[in-house]
Amino acid sequence: MGNTFGTFFRVTTFGESHGPMIGAVIDGCPARLELAESDIQPQLDRRRPGQSRLTTARSEQDRVRIVSGTENGLTLGSPVTLLVENADHRPGDYRALAQAPRPSHADYTYRQKYGILASSGGGRASARETAARVAAGAVAERLLRQRHGIEIVAWVSAVGTVDAPDFTDRPVTRAEVDAHIARCPDQKTAERMAELIDSVKRDGDSVGGIATCVCRGLPPGWGEPVFDKLSARLAAAMLSIPACRAFEIGSGFAGCRSQGSLQNDLFVKKGSRLGTTTNRSGGIQGGLSNGEPLVFRTGFKPPATIAIAQHSADYDGQNMDLRIEGRHDPCVLPRAVPVVEAMAALTLADMALANGGDG
Amino acid sequence: MGNTFGTFFRVTTFGESHGPMIGAVIDGCPARLELAESDIQPQLDRRRPGQSRLTTARSEQDRVRIVSGTENGLTLGSPVTLLVENADHRPGDYRALAQAPRPSHADYTYRQKYGILASSGGGRASARETAARVAAGAVAERLLRQRHGIEIVAWVSAVGTVDAPDFTDRPVTRAEVDAHIARCPDQKTAERMAELIDSVKRDGDSVGGIATCVCRGLPPGWGEPVFDKLSARLAAAMLSIPACRAFEIGSGFAGCRSQGSLQNDLFVKKGSRLGTTTNRSGGIQGGLSNGEPLVFRTGFKPPATIAIAQHSADYDGQNMDLRIEGRHDPCVLPRAVPVVEAMAALTLADMALANGGDG
Amino acid sequence: MGNTFGTFFRVTTFGESHGPMIGAVIDGCPARLELAESDIQPQLDRRRPGQSRLTTARSEQDRVRIVSGTENGLTLGSPVTLLVENADHRPGDYRALAQAPRPSHADYTYRQKYGILASSGGGRASARETAARVAAGAVAERLLRQRHGIEIVAWVSAVGTVDAPDFTDRPVTRAEVDAHIARCPDQKTAERMAELIDSVKRDGDSVGGIATCVCRGLPPGWGEPVFDKLSARLAAAMLSIPACRAFEIGSGFAGCRSQGSLQNDLFVKKGSRLGTTTNRSGGIQGGLSNGEPLVFRTGFKPPATIAIAQHSADYDGQNMDLRIEGRHDPCVLPRAVPVVEAMAALTLADMALANGGDG
Amino acid sequence: MGNTFGTFFRVTTFGESHGPMIGAVIDGCPARLELAESDIQPQLDRRRPGQSRLTTARSEQDRVRIVSGTENGLTLGSPVTLLVENADHRPGDYRALAQAPRPSHADYTYRQKYGILASSGGGRASARETAARVAAGAVAERLLRQRHGIEIVAWVSAVGTVDAPDFTDRPVTRAEVDAHIARCPDQKTAERMAELIDSVKRDGDSVGGIATCVCRGLPPGWGEPVFDKLSARLAAAMLSIPACRAFEIGSGFAGCRSQGSLQNDLFVKKGSRLGTTTNRSGGIQGGLSNGEPLVFRTGFKPPATIAIAQHSADYDGQNMDLRIEGRHDPCVLPRAVPVVEAMAALTLADMALANGGDG
Repeated sequence: MGNTFGTFFRVTTFGESHGPMIGAVIDGCPARLELAESDIQPQLDRRRPGQSRLTTARSEQDRVRIVSGTENGLTLGSPVTLLVENADHRPGDYRALAQAPRPSHADYTYRQKYGILASSGGGRASARETAARVAAGAVAERLLRQRHGIEIVAWVSAVGTVDAPDFTDRPVTRAEVDAHIARCPDQKTAERMAELIDSVKRDGDSVGGIATCVCRGLPPGWGEPVFDKLSARLAAAMLSIPACRAFEIGSGFAGCRSQGSLQNDLFVKKGSRLGTTTNRSGGIQGGLSNGEPLVFRTGFKPPATIAIAQHSADYDGQNMDLRIEGRHDPCVLPRAVPVVEAMAALTLADMALANGGDG
Repeated sequence: MGNTFGTFFRVTTFGESHGPMIGAVIDGCPARLELAESDIQPQLDRRRPGQSRLTTARSEQDRVRIVSGTENGLTLGSPVTLLVENADHRPGDYRALAQAPRPSHADYTYRQKYGILASSGGGRASARETAARVAAGAVAERLLRQRHGIEIVAWVSAVGTVDAPDFTDRPVTRAEVDAHIARCPDQKTAERMAELIDSVKRDGDSVGGIATCVCRGLPPGWGEPVFDKLSARLAAAMLSIPACRAFEIGSGFAGCRSQGSLQNDLFVKKGSRLGTTTNRSGGIQGGLSNGEPLVFRTGFKPPATIAIAQHSADYDGQNMDLRIEGRHDPCVLPRAVPVVEAMAALTLADMALANGGDG
Repeated sequence: MGNTFGTFFRVTTFGESHGPMIGAVIDGCPARLELAESDIQPQLDRRRPGQSRLTTARSEQDRVRIVSGTENGLTLGSPVTLLVENADHRPGDYRALAQAPRPSHADYTYRQKYGILASSGGGRASARETAARVAAGAVAERLLRQRHGIEIVAWVSAVGTVDAPDFTDRPVTRAEVDAHIARCPDQKTAERMAELIDSVKRDGDSVGGIATCVCRGLPPGWGEPVFDKLSARLAAAMLSIPACRAFEIGSGFAGCRSQGSLQNDLFVKKGSRLGTTTNRSGGIQGGLSNGEPLVFRTGFKPPATIAIAQHSADYDGQNMDLRIEGRHDPCVLPRAVPVVEAMAALTLADMALANGGDG
Repeated sequence: MGNTFGTFFRVTTFGESHGPMIGAVIDGCPARLELAESDIQPQLDRRRPGQSRLTTARSEQDRVRIVSGTENGLTLGSPVTLLVENADHRPGDYRALAQAPRPSHADYTYRQKYGILASSGGGRASARETAARVAAGAVAERLLRQRHGIEIVAWVSAVGTVDAPDFTDRPVTRAEVDAHIARCPDQKTAERMAELIDSVKRDGDSVGGIATCVCRGLPPGWGEPVFDKLSARLAAAMLSIPACRAFEIGSGFAGCRSQGSLQNDLFVKKGSRLGTTTNRSGGIQGGLSNGEPLVFRTGFKPPATIAIAQHSADYDGQNMDLRIEGRHDPCVLPRAVPVVEAMAALTLADMALANGGDG
């Protein structure tokens, strides 16, 4: 269970980190959308391992193949299936893991749940699974852009204690984000982030951070009342990303420590609709989009896999010093950016279809 | 859409804030559970308006009635239906709202979505809807306690900039929480919180804050991989509560600014299972419960309804000064506590059933 | 589980046969639909017990009350909740049933599944549950008629071996159906059906039969490919009605014994669309509506409750002669007509919303 | 939409008839089940085209490949993905179809729904899609056999007006069914069926028929009350198969024309449980399995594709004589047998998991 996201734009991902392939099936993608592999590949390239010195050395080309649901560059309304082959898997790296669970990893909990564990790597809990999300998210983005003119851009707004300035009030582009391998649109901050990542990497350690995401162009009224509020769906989407531990919308936790007279967004006429003079709500009121940009922040913990020896216990409860081999990211943030965008796109595509029409 | 929560322990709530009644239907509640109205009423009493000087003056007794699904104090396995009548609704209070949307409320977005608006109060967007959640959550708690020995306790950990000490490492009881009307188990902090709430109320303003929740007794393995991680489901549950804007699990945003060597929870033998020496993961690893207490924090914005005049716009886009009548909470936190507990219970009950067995 | 029907127009029914009330919550009913209790009551009146000598003597007025989701006669887009009180329940009638399961009833299977049984009557397995479906179905009919001009009419086409002529090629009205208490639009056949029912009733026996249903006005393209074909959804809807054992669409089983050259429906221009010269497909091709009238037949077994003594076994496996008291229908067909219409309406409303737009 | 079957054992199929491949993803398959490709291939071989003179000449080897969800012959609890490549697709055969819809095919309704049509063959409406169901069904059968000892066997009980004797009261084996290419366990009837099929094939015509299916070994209590009755789910499963038009359980339509005293199944002690002396209910009472064999019949219409010229209309409404090229089955029944078994298995696996435990 749990491998499907969405109710109307319905994505099911599959594949183990070290199996032959991973992929996604999208049921509910509207017909007559222009869609080719070249629409998907760029986001996969932004997510793939080995893209810079800040990421894991595992080398995957992550070429996507559309094997169903399109013909002559148009969607048919039938399930769109995306396959990505695994190339550089090295089961040998994981032999030591048969004895002891990696701290703050999924090894222990998966074994408790299923009574069996994929013998190498994290299986479904591996960040590799997010390649399938990114591929599916790129399809959702096609829908959102073609039918609604929506743009989604995320960036790294903090690594450890290095914070970027607030960019949420101007339309940052992906090109600006990608100008530095740290994926922070402020070059000076990006450089400091990269230095911090280099530094923890040298120490065999890892570091976490925060990604900020802005979605522009939503009409008012997306989201469903009560349990399927746009904010609730986004929160679930983000917390479903491996290593994600925190989510806030608009002014977030800081706004929660403030007063109503300072937090309310006052209405003002904006063209043919009502807008707000401020956007502390982050584009959502009463759980529904209000037409202002959607703004949220997502926190990712430092990767659990570190080279430093850890005094832990094996499956039998025996104390031991665990040293983990394998290739891993010292910081997930730069690669998390397209994953955050993908999950935002999947959430919005689902809400678009829930709101009626074919998206 | 959006009025159902859960896949296996499936709750549908209904009822407008100013209609004749609100209620919930639970489909999937296991048979042979002991359940009476007296199991549900205490949580409703903790949530109901008018319970203290810190809450709205709307007076509702909120007596719950079980009208299906039980016989002789036992559940039958059929839908459990809970009804709560609305008594003190005053449509007259809301006449002014026909012209202009309340800032940071659901008025504008609902009208955009549906082309029609409940004429008084917030309809489904009203916090009144959470009474139905609390009633259903109390049923979920019966399941969790009787079948799994799980205890759920939430409290107010911040109001504005007033912070409570960290209590997550000791088993706080609901009696301790209720010892002060501010629902913070630390009496001195509670008193300062109450003073702050009194103060903003006098000013016609409002204030937000943070609730912390701990769930003890979960076995390892609850939650579903990938998209239905326990963390993702909890995040959605919390962000679905009106006024909720932020969620974090374990060490949360602060932990995301730290390093792996400082954040990893090392394993150690605890009785017949593996436990961890620290709990920065907040009881969840790889999206599944690991047997440690579940710990999370939820931020609530200051109530949007304030007595201070606001310079906003009416539905036609005309600028105007809006003054809102009606009875409202200056701070939702004390009453949010049982709502947070209810949503945690509903999430866990669903995951319990997803994990197999009858819960 | 199992108490919800539909994905988009989503109905959850609740209530035991001998509890205080039964009801339905509809989530997904579009906003701004004209809806009042007087739109629902007529179908409930057609279904209610005690309406004629051919039905059970249990006397229920079955007055419906809308307690949420509407204001001033218009739907709000929020859940529409319908309540119907149980008045004439007589638990005493069912005392004998504690020892032995009624043959071909749900007593044995429910007790096996839940380990507990509603002490009187069939609980959720009782035909009384269908009152909630009929109420919800009447709301679905409002949607289908107001937004799409769809008309649904069912009638009794067979009781035992008494068959009605084929009426599927002309638009039978509900008034014609109701002209005789047997609910067969052919008066002579209706009279023979009534005589047969009277006769089996005198014998303490029961008799089954067949209902035919026609839905006119569907646009082409309703239904979803592969697993959610309109035919599949209709079949599930019908087989979910108590006592239903068989379903066929268009030419049905008889058509399956024929040849392609005799069964294919050839296309011909009908106004601005393509129609077919015959309708052996019953309005569905490839699982989707084709614009022709939807035609299907549903078989109901003879009621399991008969006054004749039955040589059966008690729960301990002891042989015994079972005599069942209580008030029951000698033939469900006349009362099944509005239930069949309701389930057809619920199916079509769901498919209408699945097809996009707000129905 | 519509490409997923089941709630707990959840199968999504994908792939166009003339695309590179078809396949299925199963989410919810329990962990630690023994599963290899060799468990799946036999049922695919029974379904594949070109297996006998009675089937279409399209030649597909239909080799299945498991690409996720298993390791060392055991399921991991993660999604099981099955791929089958399309080899012998001949787009040229379908050129004529761009102008006119095939009568009683999905061409017209799909084009109306999606505004686009797979250029060759039936796309998702093609019977080729059922290969993915058969593959997934074989996995469901592994679960049902290993965990519950359930056996499912279907056979051809009628072709046109040629009827087989009733075999439902004895355990027919698949070997007996496969002893003749017509897949009727009675050799003489099988021979007459084959002759009829040969005859209609010679005429360029087609013929329909009926399949009977029996499932042995179900415990009492499977199925969910009200809308998800086992009978309702089975009906939907069967009617979702291309060309299926009719379904009946137990004594079916014939039983509906009879009396309660002749149709009730009386209880009798069978070992440690209650059984029934007859099985007119077909193993289901109150919508739940009662422990007796599940027995149902499914009618398939004659294939719509015939070589005989048909006087129909093109998409513009112009009358024309349509002659259809391509390779097609004169009768789907022999190949429908494994599809019926697969859909029965998928239904039962879902109900097994719904009933609690890991199946």
